[in-house]
Amino acid sequence: MPPLRRLDVVLDSVKRLQRIGATANLLNLLQKQHPADLAEVLGDLRPLERRSAFETLLGHNSRLAMEALTELDREVGAALLVDRPAEELARLFPVLPSDDAAALIDQLPEELSASVLELMRQKESGEVQHLLEYEDRTAGRIMNPEVFALSEDLTAGEAIQALQGSRDVEMVFYLYVVDERRHLVGVVSLRRLLLVSPETPLKRIMTTELIRARVDTDQEDVAREVADYNLLAIPVVDGENKLAGIITVDDVIDVIKDEATEDILRLAGVSADEHVATSPFEAWRKRLPWLAVNLATAALAALVVQRFEATIDRVVALAAFMTIVASMGGNAATQTLTVIVRGIALGELTWGNTRRALGKETLVGLANGLVFGAAGAGIAWWVVGNPYFGGILALAMVINLIVAAFAATLIPISLRALKVDPALASAVFITTLTDVFGFFAFLGLATFFIRYL
Amino acid sequence: MPPLRRLDVVLDSVKRLQRIGATANLLNLLQKQHPADLAEVLGDLRPLERRSAFETLLGHNSRLAMEALTELDREVGAALLVDRPAEELARLFPVLPSDDAAALIDQLPEELSASVLELMRQKESGEVQHLLEYEDRTAGRIMNPEVFALSEDLTAGEAIQALQGSRDVEMVFYLYVVDERRHLVGVVSLRRLLLVSPETPLKRIMTTELIRARVDTDQEDVAREVADYNLLAIPVVDGENKLAGIITVDDVIDVIKDEATEDILRLAGVSADEHVATSPFEAWRKRLPWLAVNLATAALAALVVQRFEATIDRVVALAAFMTIVASMGGNAATQTLTVIVRGIALGELTWGNTRRALGKETLVGLANGLVFGAAGAGIAWWVVGNPYFGGILALAMVINLIVAAFAATLIPISLRALKVDPALASAVFITTLTDVFGFFAFLGLATFFIRYL
Repeated sequence: MPPLRRLDVVLDSVKRLQRIGATANLLNLLQKQHPADLAEVLGDLRPLERRSAFETLLGHNSRLAMEALTELDREVGAALLVDRPAEELARLFPVLPSDDAAALIDQLPEELSASVLELMRQKESGEVQHLLEYEDRTAGRIMNPEVFALSEDLTAGEAIQALQGSRDVEMVFYLYVVDERRHLVGVVSLRRLLLVSPETPLKRIMTTELIRARVDTDQEDVAREVADYNLLAIPVVDGENKLAGIITVDDVIDVIKDEATEDILRLAGVSADEHVATSPFEAWRKRLPWLAVNLATAALAALVVQRFEATIDRVVALAAFMTIVASMGGNAATQTLTVIVRGIALGELTWGNTRRALGKETLVGLANGLVFGAAGAGIAWWVVGNPYFGGILALAMVINLIVAAFAATLIPISLRALKVDPALASAVFITTLTDVFGFFAFLGLATFFIRYL
Repeated sequence: MPPLRRLDVVLDSVKRLQRIGATANLLNLLQKQHPADLAEVLGDLRPLERRSAFETLLGHNSRLAMEALTELDREVGAALLVDRPAEELARLFPVLPSDDAAALIDQLPEELSASVLELMRQKESGEVQHLLEYEDRTAGRIMNPEVFALSEDLTAGEAIQALQGSRDVEMVFYLYVVDERRHLVGVVSLRRLLLVSPETPLKRIMTTELIRARVDTDQEDVAREVADYNLLAIPVVDGENKLAGIITVDDVIDVIKDEATEDILRLAGVSADEHVATSPFEAWRKRLPWLAVNLATAALAALVVQRFEATIDRVVALAAFMTIVASMGGNAATQTLTVIVRGIALGELTWGNTRRALGKETLVGLANGLVFGAAGAGIAWWVVGNPYFGGILALAMVINLIVAAFAATLIPISLRALKVDPALASAVFITTLTDVFGFFAFLGLATFFIRYL
């Protein structure tokens, strides 16, 4: 066992203090934690303990409790809020940055979120509601609308004063410059402000060529820009180039992690939003459709085998060796599929090099088919004692590995062209395809050359 | 086809200008690009074109050429340098930040990198060499040793002056404060410096509780800390708490992407360092061992089937339906495996909730076994016309799905306990296991109940 981490110690203490009912001590311990640590501890508690710890904290330090909530898995976080009255929620959410509040409210049942938003609108800004009007997974949805902007008519000294007067703006390091109608016209770094004399006009020191996102830009594209250009934040503008918000690098990290998780899970035929902490019932419900698809496609493969029952009846060793052809095809296809899907996600696979990628995969498939076809043929010859049997296995393997390479390259690329997530071409479909083709090629060849077997 | 991106246009122009030999125009176009864009364009060119474009740029703007190189895939980048004389390389590398230079030098053949380092040491700082002394994948290896630090005896005003006098420090936003022996004692944000009067001593406004990494901390742990606590940078200290360097959030994003890519590829049985651009020969060589393992394990599964040839000979429909049992087991196992491996990578699966995760997966496996066992039994009964045949299929499916859940949970968890990458428990192993168990359970049961079939 690895050594205990500090948070494991905190977790054990929380459990112990809850058991003996030492609420004051518990509160004291919880209040000392960073929101991210609190979220981890809460996530590790059982649902009832979690609710009790959260409510203890909420009663005394609602800001910290809500901040911890935003760091929790969203489903888990929303579950802790779902049975509180709308009035209380409308009072709690405004302590959070609008983007975090919007993400949480979006997870609540529709009726509850509608009344919370209505109550919040009566009282304060409609910013949260505004954010929720953008499409899911766009820059508008994840941006923080509370962006600090300077008028282009200011001097460096006035800009520093304005900055000193501002509060509660999310991590300021780029200062965006706008004209009188709030069009984004430039950017100045905080560091640059310090290096010039106070009378210098912002117009003279700002950079006018700046990378920006539009409210409807896909969040994945935003993340790629921030990562490629090593930015700390990216400004978001509306259709008229008016500054609408800012996306900071910490939000981009979340997007990058989420998109990677989504790809990994989808490739395996799991919903993008399943986590270790998802309840067994939920997990079962979410995986069911994929397995149902697999049952249907596996039945299709079985049907192919059934067509050749007469052949298997005559040469029963075919039943054992057909599984090797299918298995090799499935694994080779999974390799190709994964390289292609990841290449698309990382932006490595462009329209320019698609044909080259297909050529590469076909070559690799052919080479693997020859090597493993020969090896498989050797095994089959040795076990069954018939060189023709081995030859048929080798030929089937070559055919199946080339089919695998073609399908696993072309299917995700075509999905992308249709603007469907390429990761949905999951292993479920591709391996069935190679099963069907593998069985068909091997048993078909065996039927054709049955007199040599 | 989606609309052409700006970079596709640049790419086409580069190719055209190369073809007609318009070197001056080519150089002009290349020099206008951001290093990240240049890297993308270079990456899309064929090897010969890429070398020619790189050399054109290197001759006139070596800094930009080298910066673009650091944004390229490392293998590709190193390939462009490998046949240049050590003297030239020793002159080129110092324009880069030490961490980027170290990463590139590390990719060169050993002899070349040794002479380059020797030449660089004679001339300037030994910083690059120093970085290469840390273990691969540690904070020490990826940090930038050129970190801006302030003495704890300064005032806010003196600190701002020191900052104005400094040059070439990587993105300054946290200012680390050190004592006279360079022990890290605190941190001040640039923004906070501006908000206090110039006479305020740093000691009074610095935060002393700060998150730091050690030079030997694993890069994945560093990335998790930066992501969890929403940091822009993390200071790196040596064993005596002396400030050794800084890791900025842009480097962390690279780590997060690389680690996700590694997990995705390893799960599919592909080397962690394969890219779309990897040459067919390299890709073939790297995938070969995994497919060889799969051939061996698939042969094992075939051997299991062969043991039951007498049974199949009597009821040939078994050959068709055994593939369904194996396929369902393989897919269910892949689902579980992926959720667990990703959960480990994201830190969701802790020692505290491992038992719960195993319980969940077993339950899901049992539920899926019952549902799909019943469905499969229905199909089998209908096709084969024998209810016992269906019953055996259902029972085999339940057994195989529970085995799949257990194996796909326990194997990655055990690998983690042994400090081996859990993603190495790739689909290759797990699906073979479910193949073997599936064939064994189904054909074994069929042999036992043969008189009912």
